[in-house]
Amino acid sequence: MAGPTLKDVAERAGVSRSAVSRTFTDGASVSPKMRAKVEEAARDLGYSPNALASSLTTGRTKLIGLIANNFHNPLFLEVFDLFTRRLQDRGLRPLLVNLTDETDPDNSVRMMRTYSVDGVVVASSTLPPVFAKAFRDAGIPVVHSFGRFSTRPRVHVVGIDNEDCGRMAAQELVSRGYKRVAFLGGPESATSTQDRLHGFGAEIAKHPGVEMTHSFADGYTFGAGRSEMERLIRKNPAEAYFCGDDVVAVGALSALEDSGFNVPEDVGLIGLNDMEMSGWESIDLTTIRQPVEDIVDASVSLVVSLLDAPDARPKARLFSCEVVERGTLKPRIK
Amino acid sequence: MAGPTLKDVAERAGVSRSAVSRTFTDGASVSPKMRAKVEEAARDLGYSPNALASSLTTGRTKLIGLIANNFHNPLFLEVFDLFTRRLQDRGLRPLLVNLTDETDPDNSVRMMRTYSVDGVVVASSTLPPVFAKAFRDAGIPVVHSFGRFSTRPRVHVVGIDNEDCGRMAAQELVSRGYKRVAFLGGPESATSTQDRLHGFGAEIAKHPGVEMTHSFADGYTFGAGRSEMERLIRKNPAEAYFCGDDVVAVGALSALEDSGFNVPEDVGLIGLNDMEMSGWESIDLTTIRQPVEDIVDASVSLVVSLLDAPDARPKARLFSCEVVERGTLKPRIK
Repeated sequence: MAGPTLKDVAERAGVSRSAVSRTFTDGASVSPKMRAKVEEAARDLGYSPNALASSLTTGRTKLIGLIANNFHNPLFLEVFDLFTRRLQDRGLRPLLVNLTDETDPDNSVRMMRTYSVDGVVVASSTLPPVFAKAFRDAGIPVVHSFGRFSTRPRVHVVGIDNEDCGRMAAQELVSRGYKRVAFLGGPESATSTQDRLHGFGAEIAKHPGVEMTHSFADGYTFGAGRSEMERLIRKNPAEAYFCGDDVVAVGALSALEDSGFNVPEDVGLIGLNDMEMSGWESIDLTTIRQPVEDIVDASVSLVVSLLDAPDARPKARLFSCEVVERGTLKPRIK
Repeated sequence: MAGPTLKDVAERAGVSRSAVSRTFTDGASVSPKMRAKVEEAARDLGYSPNALASSLTTGRTKLIGLIANNFHNPLFLEVFDLFTRRLQDRGLRPLLVNLTDETDPDNSVRMMRTYSVDGVVVASSTLPPVFAKAFRDAGIPVVHSFGRFSTRPRVHVVGIDNEDCGRMAAQELVSRGYKRVAFLGGPESATSTQDRLHGFGAEIAKHPGVEMTHSFADGYTFGAGRSEMERLIRKNPAEAYFCGDDVVAVGALSALEDSGFNVPEDVGLIGLNDMEMSGWESIDLTTIRQPVEDIVDASVSLVVSLLDAPDARPKARLFSCEVVERGTLKPRIK
């Protein structure tokens, strides 16, 4: 890359290279007069302080690894949009890391070391918690966004209380008079799936007149939701489903409509996330809104604070969810 | 970040730091015996050569800026998935850059300089060509994916012939007997919109019995496609539309269905891209497939080759498109 260098700026300003370096290092001492000279020369030449050069003095690269493992869930386009904006706003650089096929946490730690990231945000509810823990054990500041809530978390977690969301979904179905309900989960191995099922089941158990079954889609994808619902249709479908997330719900909706079921008259559906597409008029999915923007904001603030205090005791930050009423459940019984 | 250092490896292996450095530098001279010692020590300690450290010797960061400016088009989730995989496979690091609200190419050049990227891929058909050109003029290797075809391009372009796609769409509509057709484009300022319209219009002009109109959506988004179609419905909609891209088409489809139009009986639609969602059974959009995987593969190969030959004369690499027949156009007339 052929841009002007620190040396060019020093020569034009008639100052030492060290003076230029200090001008562009946060907190370094430099006189106002010197700073003015250097900044003018830099402006004239179109010089920008180089992250690589500055990382030599600070030991920081300003790279944050943004780890994702599901590129079939449209929610993540919103997540990437928000993360890139927030990181850019703070002068940090989002390195997008695709761990779709990765199964070995040690590999990921090596990869993040090779990449020289200052910190990592794991943006996934399906990547096993052992990944985030491996980063922490390797001394890499890490925040697990959309991770599992715990009162004594082993890594910093920002997300929602998935058990509570399961309870909310159960209450919605019961309040609308459904008597045979089901959980159509995401992948059984995902903590989000397990916790949503647990909360859903616990709440339904309080209502003796309501029967509950459950099954799982292979992934948080349209295709997985659709094929699991096709299988359920061949048996005897429930009256209403709490789906693993919105994209699973949209897949299930597609299978139901193709088989001639009316939603919500024949079968009701409620999702979780409130991805942009769920509000599209042709989908109109009743769902539980996960406050993605709050989660991203808090995750970025937290990873930034960890850069200066990597040993801070892990905390879980939770945001509350709310039901978004649209067209895929029968009305509540008055 | 607290991992083992080059110094730790040198001590454990009982060799000089320079020997460790040479072992991990491509092309540097080191005896097989020395290499074995160093690699064993590195393995024992869990040491990974650090990109920051190695960039000091090579002058390269292995960072590739992946520039995007539309996080509302689900196609880009596929694009990000493919780019991150291909770059990772080559040991490169994809820095995701969000230029949604950027209007000043000089700002972007400064940003890429500050980020110390080795090269840039502009993955957008809506970011004005002046951005890619600004990177080139600043000496930053750049490939414009989904950019405008030209026989004498000013920067390296990988994509499709959008005029040709316009002609293909026109031929499809004519061959199915539609007599009043229209182009419902993406943003008027996008080269892809302009070229698709140009090719579509040129082909329709060859068929004197066919009338054509055109209008534009504000963006390649569901919402923009939906509101433009709502406006068209209040007037007198055409018999069939070539839509700016698939997400615009899905928005238009939603508006038509909500207003009681049957697709394709009352109004036909053809899109462009063949994003994953277009194949979902509940959407089932007839479209023109853009070979995204080929475009990404070629873009990554090209940007890699430019790192070693930044002054290579700009070329345009084109991939051909094909019609994917689904449910939103009437059958062809035999």
